[in-house]
Amino acid sequence: MVQAKTWILTKHFDGFPKDSDFQLKVEELSEPKDGEVLLEAVFLSVDPYMRPFSQFRMKEGDVMIGTQVAKVIQSKNPAFPLGSHVVAPSGWRTHSLSDGTNLNPIMPEWPDNVSFSHALGTIGMPGLTALYGIEEVLGLKAGETLLVNAAAGAVGSVVGQIAKIIGCKVVGSTGSEAKLAFLKELGFDQAFNYKTVGSLEEALRSASPEGYDCYFENVGGTFSSVAIKQMKDFGRIAVCGSISTYNDSTPQTGLYPHLTMITKQLKMEGFMQSRWAHKHPASLKRLLGWVKEGKLQCREHITNGFENMPAAFMDMLKGGNIGKAIVAV
Amino acid sequence: MVQAKTWILTKHFDGFPKDSDFQLKVEELSEPKDGEVLLEAVFLSVDPYMRPFSQFRMKEGDVMIGTQVAKVIQSKNPAFPLGSHVVAPSGWRTHSLSDGTNLNPIMPEWPDNVSFSHALGTIGMPGLTALYGIEEVLGLKAGETLLVNAAAGAVGSVVGQIAKIIGCKVVGSTGSEAKLAFLKELGFDQAFNYKTVGSLEEALRSASPEGYDCYFENVGGTFSSVAIKQMKDFGRIAVCGSISTYNDSTPQTGLYPHLTMITKQLKMEGFMQSRWAHKHPASLKRLLGWVKEGKLQCREHITNGFENMPAAFMDMLKGGNIGKAIVAV
Repeated sequence: MVQAKTWILTKHFDGFPKDSDFQLKVEELSEPKDGEVLLEAVFLSVDPYMRPFSQFRMKEGDVMIGTQVAKVIQSKNPAFPLGSHVVAPSGWRTHSLSDGTNLNPIMPEWPDNVSFSHALGTIGMPGLTALYGIEEVLGLKAGETLLVNAAAGAVGSVVGQIAKIIGCKVVGSTGSEAKLAFLKELGFDQAFNYKTVGSLEEALRSASPEGYDCYFENVGGTFSSVAIKQMKDFGRIAVCGSISTYNDSTPQTGLYPHLTMITKQLKMEGFMQSRWAHKHPASLKRLLGWVKEGKLQCREHITNGFENMPAAFMDMLKGGNIGKAIVAV
Repeated sequence: MVQAKTWILTKHFDGFPKDSDFQLKVEELSEPKDGEVLLEAVFLSVDPYMRPFSQFRMKEGDVMIGTQVAKVIQSKNPAFPLGSHVVAPSGWRTHSLSDGTNLNPIMPEWPDNVSFSHALGTIGMPGLTALYGIEEVLGLKAGETLLVNAAAGAVGSVVGQIAKIIGCKVVGSTGSEAKLAFLKELGFDQAFNYKTVGSLEEALRSASPEGYDCYFENVGGTFSSVAIKQMKDFGRIAVCGSISTYNDSTPQTGLYPHLTMITKQLKMEGFMQSRWAHKHPASLKRLLGWVKEGKLQCREHITNGFENMPAAFMDMLKGGNIGKAIVAV
């Protein structure tokens, strides 16, 4: 009998999450049956999407949703041998039983010097999100100018780097001086701290006076209302996230985008990486390839201890992380 | 020497246009030079776009922008013979001189029993807008469900009819009982008066419980915030107009669309018909063909007298028209 620690959503978040919205609970797991494996979490992911999805896809009392890198510690399924590592949608759990559904083994070509934790970041969901947003949604082309906000985050930092690989001018908005320095390291052409620029409009205009062909949206809210006016005619906007609005208890309001979309003939598309799941294996290989070649840097912000999952989640929602926020068990 | 009456924008509109924002002025026109024609307005168009464009594309003191059907009353240009009719971007003018630039002769195949005024409506800019919005932006397919608002207007009424030609289920929102009756005549599958339904959300849901594949947006504002939540996953939105926000002196605010766009993976695109100008000749023939076959009904709301241009314009902005608002000189 194995004891699994889990984090429960005790109450749907109202505004910014609070400690009391979470509860640590112990579950007793039975032995794996034929076809099953017992998993032990090694790294867990905390991601912005968990905030809105807690509203849509979870009931109070559910274990928090999420993905982890886990080690197979008992196996009655030959597809997942003892000691191997998988990416598992097990939620905020230290241990879980699985019949193998939706388990993705770490790629055999994974190099020894790359932490498995990156399978939750640049070589995982956030990296896929960046790649599909750029290729499938924006159709970004060499020579174009791209704006990305939350640019030092798990997705934004990959977006900027892939855009540089493609041969674009990349402008990033971020929220601290340390993150700004990180964006410079990554090779962003222009970057600014939106919290300290006097005027966001001026900052955007000065970073690219001729406007933006493409805009990778992670932030939404008032940022979006200002940025949309800096698009070039026929500009494209990939709507990936809206983190500035996730913690509203009363939804915030702002300018409607319609008139700007008409006069500039803009295209805006919301997306989730799961749409291109059939491409994931090939896409993960491409991302890993860029990492191996040194073209994609993977920065992580690691919090130690499963007991710190809520704290790591809330810190990430406040923008405390540079790169991918990870919890190491 | 010919005297041309013109309507001047004396002051940029602040909120809803007022009589005092317009002034009737008389210009003296010289005789046409070689290559020129003298035009006399027969029908003039008043359209929603004039309200926002007055802000972007006009200075105070300019003649109001706009298109008209005019008769060539003197010609020194063999391409435009005396007595022929053209569609001319002459603005709010009874008479104008032109060197032929941007003049479009009425098609030779125009039937005698179809008023030339329709070259400003169903077989003109609004018809092209409807067609391109459906075909180029939405890519509407047989069997899909389309929502259109301002559905009894110049564009909306054509949108609904083309969608029926394609083989779609069409739901229209409009603002009066008379307009509602008109939509039923046009063959809309479902229609409602948004001013009298208790809840727009309920009305949209009841008209299409399974949601909407496509949404042709003419209204914007709060309508858009409610309607977007009724889209199916992967729904497409063609943003053609935003008439509910054109007369704001302080821009109104509302819910941001981003989170809904992400979770439903919606695509939204602003457009103007001028993007497909290369297709206009063929497109106008298609529209005329449908009119001849009785598949497109062309309703007009005609105001008599050039002196009533401002009144006709303001009435149209209030939704006083069913079908295309036209001024007959």
